[in-house]
Amino acid sequence: MRKVTYGGAASLDLYIAGPDEALDWLRWSDEAAAITGASWKGVDTILMGRKTYEFAARSGGGPEGASSIKTYIFSRTMAGAPEGVELVREDAVGFVRALKAEEGGDIVVLGGGELGSALIEGGVVDEVGVNVHPLLLGGGVPLFRPLAARAELELVEARPIAKGCVFLLYRVRN
Amino acid sequence: MRKVTYGGAASLDLYIAGPDEALDWLRWSDEAAAITGASWKGVDTILMGRKTYEFAARSGGGPEGASSIKTYIFSRTMAGAPEGVELVREDAVGFVRALKAEEGGDIVVLGGGELGSALIEGGVVDEVGVNVHPLLLGGGVPLFRPLAARAELELVEARPIAKGCVFLLYRVRN
Repeated sequence: MRKVTYGGAASLDLYIAGPDEALDWLRWSDEAAAITGASWKGVDTILMGRKTYEFAARSGGGPEGASSIKTYIFSRTMAGAPEGVELVREDAVGFVRALKAEEGGDIVVLGGGELGSALIEGGVVDEVGVNVHPLLLGGGVPLFRPLAARAELELVEARPIAKGCVFLLYRVRN
Repeated sequence: MRKVTYGGAASLDLYIAGPDEALDWLRWSDEAAAITGASWKGVDTILMGRKTYEFAARSGGGPEGASSIKTYIFSRTMAGAPEGVELVREDAVGFVRALKAEEGGDIVVLGGGELGSALIEGGVVDEVGVNVHPLLLGGGVPLFRPLAARAELELVEARPIAKGCVFLLYRVRN
């Protein structure tokens, strides 16, 4: 079964972007790069919601560059699929459950929080990783949204890395 | 200057109590006890908001037992001070700033989140400690509320403890 991972860099109060989408607080390091590299190893599929896609596009990024990676955008309102990505209008949980049963590499959910939390709630996320940065952003885009039920986790790894960050990795008990 | 500490046990999504005030998820251990004991060493003053006081009172606890500890409750709506505690109606930040300048031991802010976040925002909290538990509660009482501005932190300690918990301790850069 393909592994589905959600997470990313966040402030201690778990915002993945500050007010006005601020990302200037992110602290990069060789250790962060190594963790990111390891987490992307074996990944061939990216999932994201519409807002995350639009944010990435505005930032000059966007998924087009990663041509060997299959990208799905989940949206009921987007008019059509941007080039190089597939638009999914159906229920995200059911779609990802089917995707996991297919042959293929691992899957990363880019946050946003809305898609990630919906998929956690639906029991299709296998791992959650957070690079906790040493600040309180106080507002912005939350990593986790309210869930209808608890999700039990199992701690896989917790260690301080460079520049005051802490890497936390959990397995989700689905 | 007396040190002011805020924090406590929380889920990974940083709720200190689940929906319906649920606390059944808390995982106690010798290590958690040692950290708690160390964090209370030298403390002679507790600060809490009205809701936290009422929650403690409902839970059969309440601060009355800790007779050597001076307890302040911050509320503009409570009719009178419960026995053994002092009611503070004035601005919490100004009150705590003055309290820190007095002679005395260290000070713990019990959460609630509203008082703790107001005091962080006001620049009078010196340390934030979180015992991150391995679950997503999905809702409940948040450890941190939205802040008007960022608070920069300095990582003091990050280590896994028993039962899948992770202890994080930060100094606030005020």
